[in-house]
Amino acid sequence: MLPVRGLPEFTTGDDLAGAVAGAAPWLADGDVVVVTSKVVSKVEGRVVPVPPGADREAVRQRAIDAESVRVVARRGPLRIVETRHGWVVAAAGIDASNVPGDALVLLPEDADASARRLRGRLRELLGVDVAVVVSDTFGRTWREGLTDVAVGSAGLPPLIDHRGAVDAHGNRLETTQVAVVDELASAADLVKGKLDGVPVAVVRGLAFEPPDDAPGADPGARALVRLGPGDLFPYGSRDLVGSRRPAADLVPRDGDREAVAAAFRVASAALPEFPVVLRHGGEGDGVVDVHLPERATTTAALNLGALLGAVVVQLHAEGWTTRWEPVGTPGGSSLVGRLWLGSPRV
Amino acid sequence: MLPVRGLPEFTTGDDLAGAVAGAAPWLADGDVVVVTSKVVSKVEGRVVPVPPGADREAVRQRAIDAESVRVVARRGPLRIVETRHGWVVAAAGIDASNVPGDALVLLPEDADASARRLRGRLRELLGVDVAVVVSDTFGRTWREGLTDVAVGSAGLPPLIDHRGAVDAHGNRLETTQVAVVDELASAADLVKGKLDGVPVAVVRGLAFEPPDDAPGADPGARALVRLGPGDLFPYGSRDLVGSRRPAADLVPRDGDREAVAAAFRVASAALPEFPVVLRHGGEGDGVVDVHLPERATTTAALNLGALLGAVVVQLHAEGWTTRWEPVGTPGGSSLVGRLWLGSPRV
Repeated sequence: MLPVRGLPEFTTGDDLAGAVAGAAPWLADGDVVVVTSKVVSKVEGRVVPVPPGADREAVRQRAIDAESVRVVARRGPLRIVETRHGWVVAAAGIDASNVPGDALVLLPEDADASARRLRGRLRELLGVDVAVVVSDTFGRTWREGLTDVAVGSAGLPPLIDHRGAVDAHGNRLETTQVAVVDELASAADLVKGKLDGVPVAVVRGLAFEPPDDAPGADPGARALVRLGPGDLFPYGSRDLVGSRRPAADLVPRDGDREAVAAAFRVASAALPEFPVVLRHGGEGDGVVDVHLPERATTTAALNLGALLGAVVVQLHAEGWTTRWEPVGTPGGSSLVGRLWLGSPRV
Repeated sequence: MLPVRGLPEFTTGDDLAGAVAGAAPWLADGDVVVVTSKVVSKVEGRVVPVPPGADREAVRQRAIDAESVRVVARRGPLRIVETRHGWVVAAAGIDASNVPGDALVLLPEDADASARRLRGRLRELLGVDVAVVVSDTFGRTWREGLTDVAVGSAGLPPLIDHRGAVDAHGNRLETTQVAVVDELASAADLVKGKLDGVPVAVVRGLAFEPPDDAPGADPGARALVRLGPGDLFPYGSRDLVGSRRPAADLVPRDGDREAVAAAFRVASAALPEFPVVLRHGGEGDGVVDVHLPERATTTAALNLGALLGAVVVQLHAEGWTTRWEPVGTPGGSSLVGRLWLGSPRV
């Protein structure tokens, strides 16, 4: 893993490939060039100016709105959103660090295309066949701390598929599809660091089969987007309940569910002063713990009830049986009841 | 990044540190030794035998039960669970690959302690001060493919905290806490691969400050557990709604009567101390005034809400459009909102 030192501060229109070629003339066939998305965005002009005197945070919130197609979860000022690209990330990946105070930097418009262009230009300039990964820093659901992942790639398979392979014990590996571009982004971050002004690092020695040069043959990092049917976590529960945006955020996205959307609108029309939580409560076919903080207002309770009524109707329409078990208001607990889901009736 | 080649197949009671010292006598101060959790578990006897003739999948499901404190999401046979350690991971991290067919390998009982022991023994055997990361392969919520992350660590800070640091532009970095042990695990996986029989790799050249040797001074990878209040995704929603049937179920049909009846059951299951009133409110082609007495309990409000949610779903199933207008809680009035019914959509 080799840092590329001596790169300048980049701005819109700068020749990133030329700068990398100049700073790393030692690039060789098969190298993976990992570039921080921030410099890609800067040279591509994916920058939102913060006018003098403007409220930087307000500009940032508007930029997040513009970059998002959906709020996945929300807590206070923190928004986990789905970007237009399909990435689920805090604040739409908009970061104010390592940026002049008068600007915000967005994610690249199409980081796979950016990676392809950089790869092509490095081939022209240095005569080398390298792969490119465009990296950004994302959080994770149940793990503290951030790691670098890939938001764009070109010239290498984003996923290495061991499915169907057989290990030394004769077991078939069923689900081992490695997100190699994410591991490369993480590895490169160890070299780049966050404060060192080293936005590019090179990983040498990785064995891989480059994709075909034919248009469309390179899936890019977009292949890592997991949404729709593959998404087991389409929304964060705090969002289901907290200060929420239009009901469209809450509608299951795999079909036209106008009726349910309407019920959710009822549930969310008045912002509850307290978050009400629909949370999965344990084992069994399905138990939903329904929480209402002790100091919740009747408005919050009404909203939660509407949500619950809508959910029950939805569940019955889908063939489930349900049983509602009120819990009362035991001291100190916010649990008001449990919704038990029986087996599908079919 | 250096692979440690020539390691044997491990089994319970084997001397892992001795084997690593023998295969990598070149280990040096400051190296990070990344060990696949599977070999740690094997030498520590964290293995569940599969008796001859037993149903391997049934044994595996029971092992997942035993290792889990909570099911976070479920789809068919796939369970995302919270382990006793606090990791949220598919199948409790129990994997059947790279294991003889008569056994399943669990996560180490306490991988931070395992890492500390290995670090201590390598110091004794080779006189070197290395850090140790115990890695495992986890999936991610919204990204395809797996990456290696840390489940245990010793001798290095699991998180490098850039919060409060200032970048070259004078911006304070607010949230950049890097999960460096996870990035190390990912980096090492690029060298170890999945099928090569290389369960140990060494990362050399990383600058870090080892934690103090005092007991308890090393937080270990456990510092990366994010659950409880910090968890924005405490459950998987597919679990809430189960394997749903086609949206066509929501169009008006005889069965809707049953669904709405179920929602009404939810609404009335707990005896409300106050009657809840759905009353036709007058003008237009449909306005329903929704009342809730001022002294109503949150339980009554919850029940009313459930009724309302069910009614809205029913109305939409019958072709009405609706709009919910919250009224707030004006002094002396019990009116909490109005449900406007538009013309049937036909």
